[in-house]
Amino acid sequence: MKKISVSIIGASGYAGGELLRILLNHPNVEIAQATSRKFAKFPVTVAHPNLRGLTNLKFSKVEDLKKCDILFIGLPNGVSQKNMDGYMKIAPKIIDLGADFRLNNLENYENWYGKHEMPELLQKFIYGIAELHREKIRNTNYVACAGCEATCSILTLYPLFKNNLIYPQNVFIDAKLGSSAAGGKPSLSTHHPERSGVVRSYMPTMHRHTAEIEQELKTFSDTNIQVNVSATAIEMVRGILVTCQTFLKEDLSELDIWQIYRRTYENEPFIRLINDKVGVYRFPEPKLLSGTNFCDIGLQKDKRSNRLVVVGAIDNLVKGTAGQAVQAMNLMFGFDEELGLGFPGLHPI
Amino acid sequence: MKKISVSIIGASGYAGGELLRILLNHPNVEIAQATSRKFAKFPVTVAHPNLRGLTNLKFSKVEDLKKCDILFIGLPNGVSQKNMDGYMKIAPKIIDLGADFRLNNLENYENWYGKHEMPELLQKFIYGIAELHREKIRNTNYVACAGCEATCSILTLYPLFKNNLIYPQNVFIDAKLGSSAAGGKPSLSTHHPERSGVVRSYMPTMHRHTAEIEQELKTFSDTNIQVNVSATAIEMVRGILVTCQTFLKEDLSELDIWQIYRRTYENEPFIRLINDKVGVYRFPEPKLLSGTNFCDIGLQKDKRSNRLVVVGAIDNLVKGTAGQAVQAMNLMFGFDEELGLGFPGLHPI
Amino acid sequence: MKKISVSIIGASGYAGGELLRILLNHPNVEIAQATSRKFAKFPVTVAHPNLRGLTNLKFSKVEDLKKCDILFIGLPNGVSQKNMDGYMKIAPKIIDLGADFRLNNLENYENWYGKHEMPELLQKFIYGIAELHREKIRNTNYVACAGCEATCSILTLYPLFKNNLIYPQNVFIDAKLGSSAAGGKPSLSTHHPERSGVVRSYMPTMHRHTAEIEQELKTFSDTNIQVNVSATAIEMVRGILVTCQTFLKEDLSELDIWQIYRRTYENEPFIRLINDKVGVYRFPEPKLLSGTNFCDIGLQKDKRSNRLVVVGAIDNLVKGTAGQAVQAMNLMFGFDEELGLGFPGLHPI
Amino acid sequence: MKKISVSIIGASGYAGGELLRILLNHPNVEIAQATSRKFAKFPVTVAHPNLRGLTNLKFSKVEDLKKCDILFIGLPNGVSQKNMDGYMKIAPKIIDLGADFRLNNLENYENWYGKHEMPELLQKFIYGIAELHREKIRNTNYVACAGCEATCSILTLYPLFKNNLIYPQNVFIDAKLGSSAAGGKPSLSTHHPERSGVVRSYMPTMHRHTAEIEQELKTFSDTNIQVNVSATAIEMVRGILVTCQTFLKEDLSELDIWQIYRRTYENEPFIRLINDKVGVYRFPEPKLLSGTNFCDIGLQKDKRSNRLVVVGAIDNLVKGTAGQAVQAMNLMFGFDEELGLGFPGLHPI
Repeated sequence: MKKISVSIIGASGYAGGELLRILLNHPNVEIAQATSRKFAKFPVTVAHPNLRGLTNLKFSKVEDLKKCDILFIGLPNGVSQKNMDGYMKIAPKIIDLGADFRLNNLENYENWYGKHEMPELLQKFIYGIAELHREKIRNTNYVACAGCEATCSILTLYPLFKNNLIYPQNVFIDAKLGSSAAGGKPSLSTHHPERSGVVRSYMPTMHRHTAEIEQELKTFSDTNIQVNVSATAIEMVRGILVTCQTFLKEDLSELDIWQIYRRTYENEPFIRLINDKVGVYRFPEPKLLSGTNFCDIGLQKDKRSNRLVVVGAIDNLVKGTAGQAVQAMNLMFGFDEELGLGFPGLHPI
Repeated sequence: MKKISVSIIGASGYAGGELLRILLNHPNVEIAQATSRKFAKFPVTVAHPNLRGLTNLKFSKVEDLKKCDILFIGLPNGVSQKNMDGYMKIAPKIIDLGADFRLNNLENYENWYGKHEMPELLQKFIYGIAELHREKIRNTNYVACAGCEATCSILTLYPLFKNNLIYPQNVFIDAKLGSSAAGGKPSLSTHHPERSGVVRSYMPTMHRHTAEIEQELKTFSDTNIQVNVSATAIEMVRGILVTCQTFLKEDLSELDIWQIYRRTYENEPFIRLINDKVGVYRFPEPKLLSGTNFCDIGLQKDKRSNRLVVVGAIDNLVKGTAGQAVQAMNLMFGFDEELGLGFPGLHPI
Repeated sequence: MKKISVSIIGASGYAGGELLRILLNHPNVEIAQATSRKFAKFPVTVAHPNLRGLTNLKFSKVEDLKKCDILFIGLPNGVSQKNMDGYMKIAPKIIDLGADFRLNNLENYENWYGKHEMPELLQKFIYGIAELHREKIRNTNYVACAGCEATCSILTLYPLFKNNLIYPQNVFIDAKLGSSAAGGKPSLSTHHPERSGVVRSYMPTMHRHTAEIEQELKTFSDTNIQVNVSATAIEMVRGILVTCQTFLKEDLSELDIWQIYRRTYENEPFIRLINDKVGVYRFPEPKLLSGTNFCDIGLQKDKRSNRLVVVGAIDNLVKGTAGQAVQAMNLMFGFDEELGLGFPGLHPI
Repeated sequence: MKKISVSIIGASGYAGGELLRILLNHPNVEIAQATSRKFAKFPVTVAHPNLRGLTNLKFSKVEDLKKCDILFIGLPNGVSQKNMDGYMKIAPKIIDLGADFRLNNLENYENWYGKHEMPELLQKFIYGIAELHREKIRNTNYVACAGCEATCSILTLYPLFKNNLIYPQNVFIDAKLGSSAAGGKPSLSTHHPERSGVVRSYMPTMHRHTAEIEQELKTFSDTNIQVNVSATAIEMVRGILVTCQTFLKEDLSELDIWQIYRRTYENEPFIRLINDKVGVYRFPEPKLLSGTNFCDIGLQKDKRSNRLVVVGAIDNLVKGTAGQAVQAMNLMFGFDEELGLGFPGLHPI
């Protein structure tokens, strides 16, 4: 079989590095070009030292991009929307890893991010979570990957909303995030002596991923929906854990809820339901997911009330970004959905 | 002035070590004895290597305790209640650091902890948070120090309850805890390769400190109160951060709420309200509190709704245990409340 | 092609878990049995939660082992030597991951480890480092994998000894190790509050791996050899870095030495020579090697003298144990040496 | 007693923050001014959040400095030498925390640091380690504090050189350092995802502190001295551990060496000799020293040879910088040498 040719714009960032790592081992893919303004002409291993010995690829300038079968775009918020029409001439299929095309409603976008430069394209992109939009992703040329925190929250809460089990205005998400979520650019807040060991309430309210979470989950709700997100940066490089507290409408048992989760996700290759009664890892644990495309989900019902706590974990750079993107690419080209995404994770780590 | 003589039961644990550290530098105190079954006759520095060169004290057996002015007790849950009548003969004043005498209602105790062996003493102990019970502590001989997570949650939420600002059944506490909260005894779950880097949902519901939090805060509420606690162990040795989400009854501004917090805590030496608009540490940060008796509190109101997020941080072994105990001792003996508790914390750390 | 059947004794430990992870993805291998006394009849995922969803294998008792093509043994020091004759009846090929058969000289063994119960077998086992003993490993049925610290030190120093470049009694190894090197059994010294953040000089002298290092390197030396090892446990779960200081006999330039290293290792698939002049990772970095079978080596010559510092890094559980074992297995069965060992490592991590 | 007035130049850095923390609690000191170009007119708590609630001091511009009794200078290498004559007009006594006046030989300085702008002052400054130069410090007006790594290495090795026990050209120092040693300025190499968990060989040779170490120790040696330093950055914010390997000239027992160390340091308030046979912390451990002015020293003799391994630990920001400076100040003013430096450190941490 002829391999598809893939190029990556903004390949020197953390998401770009993960794309390279995954795609270099993808049997159906040939990496054509990887762009970086800063590192043009340097080997990709300058930015991604883990790829030493595995590739001789060098970074290109974005101006030198040639036509390819699919283009991945990993640029800061607000940048890809300025050039998307140009990118569309380079490749018939595009997967954008940034926030520019995740929201399909212009007003909503502008409330959270400000002015959009290509609003007419907002409707063209399919939101990249395969577990919610598999068929649409198979049939589109344009995918906007979900934000990492949104991916984790949506997958964790989806069965509750889909099955109308909770009050849609009373969901409390406490998100714990690692330092790689803030990207590869140094600043005082990421300086090691300042960032090490923190429990930093960097976004008690107004986390922008709220917009995506509400967009995706409100389709299952008659009434308004309000998702209350609080985000805390903790000592961790990779990984997200969301702890979601909510109230059940009806008095379901923990077993009932597990059955609904199992039914909802029964054929999903990358969702694992964690329901161990013994052992150290009885709930989802982000460190076990480093490098994997899994989203692990666990839950516990409060014995004193109808409160339900659901917990979800992902690797923000894989299921939350690059792995999600490759999963979408596999669907768009009719490949086995799991191709290139088989790494099981490490323990201990 | 003659120094008071102090003895510590269970002095080889982490709380005992902190008591020793603080009391060795307390100008009005002479440490008489420190007991440890395991380390009897060994220098206290075997268990507490930070005290090397500062003291020649050796651990005693509990059977060899002599009369003293005040007795601190740091024993596992369920142990101090078995011997409390004996301890009361050793010293006229007692501060218990464990959970046995925190709840003043027997039924409540037994719901959370099981049978109590000296229920008649439950009413004798004053709950040790000076910010709520200063006068009672001044006038009692018996103090039960609060649990570390409860201390942090109560101090963070107290102004909201006292001033009747929130719906008392809709409070969501997400508590992040360090490994020292689990005590000094090794287990598989605290084995470094298993504990390092975790975001472990060890108590999504049913955290026992819920009972204390509700006991203390319900006195300010007409209706029932339900505090929803979820506890997560993170990569950290010392420290607690609680992220509390709740809804305001009325449409107060963030400034209004700050004024209420300031008024409530205006003369408190160990409460700091963190309201920085710039800098890396705009919210309470546990790592800055290591070794200190401060409780730092910050907050943010959601611009989209009446949701309020209040964040509190302490050192679990100081304000959450040993420092709280010394603060209570200072009150019980009429000393300056801050004596021995002046360490400001380190930065960077 | 028919897959070979593999069984693992002592499969619940960290080395066993890594073997399972690697072998589950090895195309030529079928895992027959994995034994654990403690977890017999439980799924292997109880001990190795990263394998959830990837296998239904359950732990067996060692007594129930059936014949297989090759047996991996991961037992505490001193245990495999007691039963090796029995194991040899189960499988025609054996790879022992412990220390029992690494030293081929009985007196040497007894100096470092005490009495040996099957000294007659010491000569039968080939030391498992393929880079030194590839042909012997291809032609043997019995391999004793090297100790993790020894693997890293030997590979780092081998070109210097092989080419007679240094004074063989003046080599100083400072080894930095992660917590997984101490195994999966909890103790006070591995209790998270005690182990976290340490720089613990746990073996300033008398590290047992010294015996292996000297055994392997002395074959290249006319005179006596003395390797001076000091081992420090640092904040890390996986990984070893050895910093080796030594003096060159002749005034070679850094470039000369690089050429010798390149020549020595030119066809080695798992040795990477790190010689970057720019970037953050100019020297070998263990964290980049987590999960990989690479040994990365770098060096710097002192401008003031003929001192040479050579630095080597591995993942102690992969190249230092389970990966080395699979590499040896590949050689023993005539497979592609790299099979199953392709994971490139993660960045950032 | 009238307090002395102290000002600090470059007070927004990590060393400046530690000086403020220590001096705010020093009974004989009044902090007059603390300068920072970047933060002028802002409260010092903007840079040093641990001081919240303890001081209302604001940063000044260096141009606005008034006369004071002593001036501490914490500036990047090369800066203080440009303005030292001006500083000398502001205060009769000066303690410089940087590298500009540590070396008293111009040629030596220029070999390691390049051109010096006030070479005539090099001889005026006394090197700030009280354990070596107590009397000179008492009688000088100008002190240059030692580099942090040099402080730790010199104190660890001093008894060996002073008593002529080792071969002075065969000393190997492996220094492990935390991230705060690199200062408060962000860069890619200190960006948390890149710095977290590293074992980074950032200076295998040519560490500049070598010059200081050799200057101080060569006074005890007839022959040339060569100290071989290799420096590795590890996962730690504060702290240094040096592992020093060397050979004894004569066959002394471990006990003999301990007696020499004890005799050398018998009256030193800030040197602790760590010689525990039991417990987890049998050797010096930097994390136990956070915030303290101690230098802890331990040792072990190789049973196989005359190799000696000596291990030393300090907090780089206290004994390695600000604490050392305050200790010198105490001597210069005739105060109790330990004043303000009593913090014992924390455990667990």
